Amino acid sequence: MRLIIPSASLKAVATGWLVLAALGAESREDTAAGWVKPVVEQVAAGLWRVRFGTPEAFTPVAIREAGPRLDDLKRLPPPAALPFEPGQIRGRITPSHTAIYVPCDEPGEQIYGFGLDPGAYEQKGLRKYLTVCAGVMGKTGASHGPVPFYVSTRGYGVYVDTSRVPLVHVARLTAKDQNDSSDVPPPALKTSERELYATGPTHGRSEVVFELQGNPRGVDVYVFGGPTLREAVQRYNLFSGGGAVPPLWGLGLKYRTFTGANQTSVMQVARSLREMKIPCDMIGLEPGWQSHAYSCSLAWSKDRFPQPATLVRELRQAGFEVNLWEHAYIHPTSPLHAPLYSRSGDFLVWGGLVVDFADPEAFRIFAEYHDREFVSQGIMGFKADECDNQPLDDSTPFNYPYSSVFPSGIDGDQMTQLFGYFQQRALLSVFRAHNLRTWGDVRATTALAGPLPFNLYSDAYTFDQYLRQLVNASFTGLLWSPEVREARSLDELLNRVAMSAFAPQMCLNLWFMPHPLWEQYDGGKNKDHQLLPEAERQAVADRLRSIVNQRYELLPYLYACFHRYRTEGLPPVRSLLLEFPQDRKLRAVDDAFMFGDSLLAAPLIGEAGSRTLTLPQGVRWYELNQGRWHDGGAVVSVAGKPGQMPLFVKENSLLPLAEPVQHVDRDTVFKITVKVYGKNPAPFTLIEDDGQTYDFEKGAFNRVVLNWRADGGGKVESTGPFAGRRYDIVAW
Amino acid sequence: MRLIIPSASLKAVATGWLVLAALGAESREDTAAGWVKPVVEQVAAGLWRVRFGTPEAFTPVAIREAGPRLDDLKRLPPPAALPFEPGQIRGRITPSHTAIYVPCDEPGEQIYGFGLDPGAYEQKGLRKYLTVCAGVMGKTGASHGPVPFYVSTRGYGVYVDTSRVPLVHVARLTAKDQNDSSDVPPPALKTSERELYATGPTHGRSEVVFELQGNPRGVDVYVFGGPTLREAVQRYNLFSGGGAVPPLWGLGLKYRTFTGANQTSVMQVARSLREMKIPCDMIGLEPGWQSHAYSCSLAWSKDRFPQPATLVRELRQAGFEVNLWEHAYIHPTSPLHAPLYSRSGDFLVWGGLVVDFADPEAFRIFAEYHDREFVSQGIMGFKADECDNQPLDDSTPFNYPYSSVFPSGIDGDQMTQLFGYFQQRALLSVFRAHNLRTWGDVRATTALAGPLPFNLYSDAYTFDQYLRQLVNASFTGLLWSPEVREARSLDELLNRVAMSAFAPQMCLNLWFMPHPLWEQYDGGKNKDHQLLPEAERQAVADRLRSIVNQRYELLPYLYACFHRYRTEGLPPVRSLLLEFPQDRKLRAVDDAFMFGDSLLAAPLIGEAGSRTLTLPQGVRWYELNQGRWHDGGAVVSVAGKPGQMPLFVKENSLLPLAEPVQHVDRDTVFKITVKVYGKNPAPFTLIEDDGQTYDFEKGAFNRVVLNWRADGGGKVESTGPFAGRRYDIVAW
Repeated sequence: MRLIIPSASLKAVATGWLVLAALGAESREDTAAGWVKPVVEQVAAGLWRVRFGTPEAFTPVAIREAGPRLDDLKRLPPPAALPFEPGQIRGRITPSHTAIYVPCDEPGEQIYGFGLDPGAYEQKGLRKYLTVCAGVMGKTGASHGPVPFYVSTRGYGVYVDTSRVPLVHVARLTAKDQNDSSDVPPPALKTSERELYATGPTHGRSEVVFELQGNPRGVDVYVFGGPTLREAVQRYNLFSGGGAVPPLWGLGLKYRTFTGANQTSVMQVARSLREMKIPCDMIGLEPGWQSHAYSCSLAWSKDRFPQPATLVRELRQAGFEVNLWEHAYIHPTSPLHAPLYSRSGDFLVWGGLVVDFADPEAFRIFAEYHDREFVSQGIMGFKADECDNQPLDDSTPFNYPYSSVFPSGIDGDQMTQLFGYFQQRALLSVFRAHNLRTWGDVRATTALAGPLPFNLYSDAYTFDQYLRQLVNASFTGLLWSPEVREARSLDELLNRVAMSAFAPQMCLNLWFMPHPLWEQYDGGKNKDHQLLPEAERQAVADRLRSIVNQRYELLPYLYACFHRYRTEGLPPVRSLLLEFPQDRKLRAVDDAFMFGDSLLAAPLIGEAGSRTLTLPQGVRWYELNQGRWHDGGAVVSVAGKPGQMPLFVKENSLLPLAEPVQHVDRDTVFKITVKVYGKNPAPFTLIEDDGQTYDFEKGAFNRVVLNWRADGGGKVESTGPFAGRRYDIVAW
Repeated sequence: MRLIIPSASLKAVATGWLVLAALGAESREDTAAGWVKPVVEQVAAGLWRVRFGTPEAFTPVAIREAGPRLDDLKRLPPPAALPFEPGQIRGRITPSHTAIYVPCDEPGEQIYGFGLDPGAYEQKGLRKYLTVCAGVMGKTGASHGPVPFYVSTRGYGVYVDTSRVPLVHVARLTAKDQNDSSDVPPPALKTSERELYATGPTHGRSEVVFELQGNPRGVDVYVFGGPTLREAVQRYNLFSGGGAVPPLWGLGLKYRTFTGANQTSVMQVARSLREMKIPCDMIGLEPGWQSHAYSCSLAWSKDRFPQPATLVRELRQAGFEVNLWEHAYIHPTSPLHAPLYSRSGDFLVWGGLVVDFADPEAFRIFAEYHDREFVSQGIMGFKADECDNQPLDDSTPFNYPYSSVFPSGIDGDQMTQLFGYFQQRALLSVFRAHNLRTWGDVRATTALAGPLPFNLYSDAYTFDQYLRQLVNASFTGLLWSPEVREARSLDELLNRVAMSAFAPQMCLNLWFMPHPLWEQYDGGKNKDHQLLPEAERQAVADRLRSIVNQRYELLPYLYACFHRYRTEGLPPVRSLLLEFPQDRKLRAVDDAFMFGDSLLAAPLIGEAGSRTLTLPQGVRWYELNQGRWHDGGAVVSVAGKPGQMPLFVKENSLLPLAEPVQHVDRDTVFKITVKVYGKNPAPFTLIEDDGQTYDFEKGAFNRVVLNWRADGGGKVESTGPFAGRRYDIVAW
């Protein structure tokens, strides 16, 4: 039996944001074995919703932060024809699960995505287990940001809108009715395990199979057109609501202090940063700021922080915004315990209530408390910790069960997948009400995360996993902050710091170090107060400063990229393949990435001081500050001092570099030198606004367009209603 | 809100095997939040069924091999009072899952079971993921034999009758309404990850929570009384149908030959075994016997085995029974492909059909083929390989998806859990029809496996995992065969062989070695034909022979223990705690075990030649053949040559030792020397029968009771109708 589904013909009739055209796909087997007929609706050009049955109540689309940016979607290049019709996606609904089958036919096709995934880059042939997860589970894709969205080198993307934990078989199995045994190789006796289990290509047509156990109702599938995977990702991000725009200070350095720090020692660290002239914009306080953590009182420790208002004021006066660590497991001593008792799950985590964020009133109570106690007191960010799930093979009990019951009616597994997303939304709502931007940290999120100004983070990965997550994040609308805490050696530390400097957020997380990083980078020794000799401290600080300075040089450039993320859906830090989707040599490259439109960053791995890389084809690449250039497609060796990020500038770029500041404040004006690469550099548009409110959404910003004229001079053209001034172009 | 369920009063009214008393537990919250009222029925003394909703169609109880042994259940010691009433178990059914909550309250309580579990022995505080699995996933209990049955040191057992993949939280979480914060320790700031995630005891009442995702109907829970966990295990095994009794030859050595072997070389190995005087009863052929394996043709390779009938006849004449490797993924070239095409799942494995064993006709076709082609041709055993599941983090695609559809209506996840069990039943049915016993191998099974004469196996574990699985298997009715294939050194090899000799099945699996083990035990060198010098070969063979001889000395003793397994539910190889359930010092001991009633085996681990162990309390222990004894509770050091299993005989035991034979045949009479330990040895009952048919089930066996009289002489008393003679007691 071969399932035959005739192509559905596409008709585009605009009737609203989600329903542009209702298309019914005919199937000969609709009613047998749980098959349901897909109902296809066109959402926008190159964007279809394929509905199977009735979607569940709690999905990312149902609880999303923002609606799709339909106008911006229209500005994208028109999609090419898809390799399959949306109505050819098959779906089956049984009392125990919903299953979705998406064609994935071509041997040469490769698949990317599924979220943060620390273990795999190329996804074809793998089995994914897309649970939120605080650790690595092989190549399953379990991660802080598991996302049931993938893109294909054939130029399309597919998103399954679910908050169940999907098992996904990525074109690795063959259905009986789609088998073609004509190309089965002759049998060869296998005398080793490797041979026995070698992954062979499937024979015949293959599919990407999504299994949603525990969903007996149905699901919506969204298909995003190209023409390349780059545009498919852009469409997905614009469908999500567009990328988040950070406050300007959010792009600076975040320094998280010792969890046992007190008011005095925090101020001391802040002063040391200024004395050492290491630029920094954010101080993060770790669990010790609370009177009880694990679970959380969400109240200041009177012992360690007797005058929090004073601390916050003094830090802000010194140019630091304050970020508070927390989780949403509420300890009995918390003021939130009584009001949230009946609005929480039926199981406790570390003895704390699990907030039922799906209950609007619980959401409101949580947000209102944060407003009154923190944001109204000047706190500008939060770190939402432990909202993920432990790996299956980890025995530490920090989770509520999947069978947990919440008053809102959300299932425990759905809540597990959505908890971090909900928490971000609740925190963001407070800042939104104040018309203030925030830039936070969160340890778990889900699909459609683009508009949320929070960075996924962890301090517990190997170098290659940090880097792979940075690259993978760009396929699915995630921001990743590869936190630095310690290293086996100074060289590795500096390479880690350099990678952090080229991430959406730069963060040093010294939560278990009583002394500043430059006084001792070995975690154990720092804890034991065995500090480096004074001269060595200065040397470490010098090298740290030089890395952070480079980050601050790139602040205006990066800020512009984030605005583009919002309106074009193009992530500021992105995989090379996303920038050069046609370059087949880049398909396996997960150890280098684009930092904005012009810079290619190729991190030195581990303790290394050199590496090789293959440069993307079709364009010349200039080594930053070296005067050397290479042809695209060249395999080049780069050598440097650990901590110096190897950077290549794309031909015909204008790169605005700022004079580093110690921190960004309301009135900071960046002194910009524009560097010119290539003979016909494209214009570069800086964005000039207040850097801290949402007024830009109403148009209160200027476009500062840098142009390099054929006669050799630079030209600056500023348009827009913003009255202030951010940029002083001092040289070309 | 505290859920209050008044105690149900127990009434025992016999109305049939499953329904002795119907008891309804009242709950104030039965209808809220999916709670359903438990319906309690007493199955036998000390055995209750607690029903929640309507059980699913495909569960181990629904597809079981045998009914409960009700008469034997009655002979067990009467149960003591349970620490909770069966009606206090709570259950909740939602559209996405069923959840079961079993009280587990006492801080001092410890939990064992959940199947083969290579990673954990003491189960309390862990999260279990009870999927069939071909590898280790930490302490999740994923294994070749995941079983949702556990026993408690408080003297009871609980079985949840499901073929979904249960997530189980073993008394590690606290429900909100059962929390008691009065004993929460004061907060202490934590400055390391270890501290942050340290598993603290839960506060307040805890439960064992079973989550059955994808089961929207309900489930039966069975409760097994004690008085100790030993009797709870016995009740579970008798409920399962009692333990399997092997053919006598099944307790000998099984030698699996090179997968690339042909008819000539297999006969050569068989002759070598006899020449080397290494006892052996079974030759196992690996994939190469088939014309196509991965997937399987289930037909002889004409190239390698041109005259299979001759081979089988010659091997049997030489005293070897033949076992054939297979899996139930049917290759297009198989004669079974056409008849099973429409009776298989909708996905292929290695291009082969996945047999829908839940369809009685598919089951029959598969069995009938095995009868005609193999069993009727003299094949006496099968090895059902690859019927398990790959670990989640493994990328090799040897599974069909959970969402697979089978014509019988069984779900893919249920089939995954039950596949090996079904395959065993199908194979067993053939031998049953011939009134012949078999002794086979299977790589996956499920609950209620006691009556199935198949040993779980794998050749891919570390030494401690092999050993832990051997011990854990005894809690849940599983047989485990720690296969030996190679080792890093001769010492480790011999220790592995020794452990295998003290398992339910002894097996050397040399599937990737073209030459016999004693010619080269290094796998790579064996494959490269780099053989040991002649003298060394002899030395290796000498040491192998001495281990195998010891196994054969214990054959009559072990055979008697298996008969006890059948009628008393007491597994022949068992954890020390199962033998001495009151000895608290044994709670963590997973590296020694009882081999039958009298022998304690304490394997030398890895390459070691010595070890220590704590002997069980309350009885004296004699070192076998050493003349030394130790008091119970003593911590003793034992030293030996690798390959010599340290053995301790329990005080007041009669140990019948046989003169080793080269193989067991129809007429073998064992020459027995009875060794006497202690002043008042208990009688020991040998079982005398034909050793190969099921006639013993109809009473065709003798009990040969060995007694040591106070005046110092041995007495043998034989009762029963069996006319033959197995044992010749030659000395005391």
